[in-house]
Amino acid sequence: MSVYDYILTHTNFVRKDDLKYPFEERGLQFGDGIYEVIRVYKGQYYLIEEHVERLYRSAEAVKIDIPFTKKEMYSHLDELLRKNSIDTDAKVYLQITRGSAPRDHAFPSNTTANLYAYVQDLPRKMDIMREGVSTITQPDVRWDWCYIKSLNLLPNVMAKQTASEAGCFEAILHKDGEITECSSSNVYLVRDGKVYTHPAKKNILHGCVRMKVEHFCKEEAIPFIEEAFRVEDIQYADELFLSSSTAEVTPITKVDGHLVNEGKPGPITRTIQQKYEQDAKIEEASSIFAQEV
Amino acid sequence: MSVYDYILTHTNFVRKDDLKYPFEERGLQFGDGIYEVIRVYKGQYYLIEEHVERLYRSAEAVKIDIPFTKKEMYSHLDELLRKNSIDTDAKVYLQITRGSAPRDHAFPSNTTANLYAYVQDLPRKMDIMREGVSTITQPDVRWDWCYIKSLNLLPNVMAKQTASEAGCFEAILHKDGEITECSSSNVYLVRDGKVYTHPAKKNILHGCVRMKVEHFCKEEAIPFIEEAFRVEDIQYADELFLSSSTAEVTPITKVDGHLVNEGKPGPITRTIQQKYEQDAKIEEASSIFAQEV
Repeated sequence: MSVYDYILTHTNFVRKDDLKYPFEERGLQFGDGIYEVIRVYKGQYYLIEEHVERLYRSAEAVKIDIPFTKKEMYSHLDELLRKNSIDTDAKVYLQITRGSAPRDHAFPSNTTANLYAYVQDLPRKMDIMREGVSTITQPDVRWDWCYIKSLNLLPNVMAKQTASEAGCFEAILHKDGEITECSSSNVYLVRDGKVYTHPAKKNILHGCVRMKVEHFCKEEAIPFIEEAFRVEDIQYADELFLSSSTAEVTPITKVDGHLVNEGKPGPITRTIQQKYEQDAKIEEASSIFAQEV
Repeated sequence: MSVYDYILTHTNFVRKDDLKYPFEERGLQFGDGIYEVIRVYKGQYYLIEEHVERLYRSAEAVKIDIPFTKKEMYSHLDELLRKNSIDTDAKVYLQITRGSAPRDHAFPSNTTANLYAYVQDLPRKMDIMREGVSTITQPDVRWDWCYIKSLNLLPNVMAKQTASEAGCFEAILHKDGEITECSSSNVYLVRDGKVYTHPAKKNILHGCVRMKVEHFCKEEAIPFIEEAFRVEDIQYADELFLSSSTAEVTPITKVDGHLVNEGKPGPITRTIQQKYEQDAKIEEASSIFAQEV
């Protein structure tokens, strides 16, 4: 799981050991930046256009000028994989901050954005995608603009840690009982053959995999209903699942200690997982269905 | 306004140019850390105990183990001023992150906190304290736990920038019309001889100067009422002021283009400012009242 040696920055590629963050990096002092985590399968990006488009949307929302045109961005991201000779399953973490300047909340003048991107191995999480995960519900204390993929992730960190200490994979967040999303994934409830999820408003991340889930549902004529469900609806769920770039599509089999679908991944979740693998061109031998009992 | 050369870290003092942030600094990737800005007058800390106590409270709230005991913290902070030969008005910026580890939301195991503290000159902002500042009101989109002085400051940055672009010093934030605080200061409304401010709940910072303002009011038998006021109450305000470690006590003379108290600092604001100067042992020659017309 180590980080590959060549790091892409706003100026050039540098070796990991030679990278030096500026002293007054606004990313560190204010979380004044945005990021993306892009999935790579066998050395090929998956959903890269969706991620790059969202990156530019996030940048626009917080008024950061990305130092590359989109065309340059694609080219540099390709080079990042090539320079590191990536042919495995991996992820690219890409971060852009407003730059560095003497600490002052307002935007500095005459400062340009800093960019850092690196590659890390990321084997598919086969176990959890096959067997499902346990979750807990927790109040959503985050800010109102979670559609911006910003570096302000402390509430997400705290929620994930609480889940982790409870032996769970994720925290399902709710505002006054209304489910928004998880600490680092979107969440869906299946009932009577329909998929429900929070609408893509400003208070949730508009997940790239979420967009795909919507698309897969349409292809399979499964109603995809953008309507928030509530904590108390979970007990009546036929299935529950989550999605993210690193967890792909993962069944949720337990919430707050109660089993969902008797603790087994349900058929609609399985359909979406299958379609994901097809879309991501996962080879049969690497499929989560390959060695299933 | 430059940064003095010796930086305090969790391991030792380093020269600014030799400081190298770790590659996977959680402060940079998640804003997973806390901070304080401590005021220094003529080489002496002001309200240092209040700041250190709050730092440890913030750390506890986000479960960061501060690498120093409080006794060590005081001693290191003193040394920070000594090593840099500080005898002017300055500020110390102190930041503690959860440490560095391969990127994962949940707390890393076997990682210890990173600490960085530096000194920077900070002359008192005489003009604004004498004449007052213009402000705008804006929705408060921040998270629910603003009592934690965390590095998640992007909403504050955005609000301050909007204020700045409107030619204003600060943004007065409100949740559905109810005033919470400003983007980097607490805010107070004076009416009929009473001072109103949002109660010190979880959704505002419990300012160190705010604590002092409460104390000064008590000493002067001015009722200090912890009751949130609303945007529409501002038009009936006799006075309005803000407080922070860097802006001390500053009159607000304009909100959204409308004058407060005909654009002049009011008598209660002046009383609080005077008491602040006494408490901070500001010399008469350096007083904001010294050369006032």
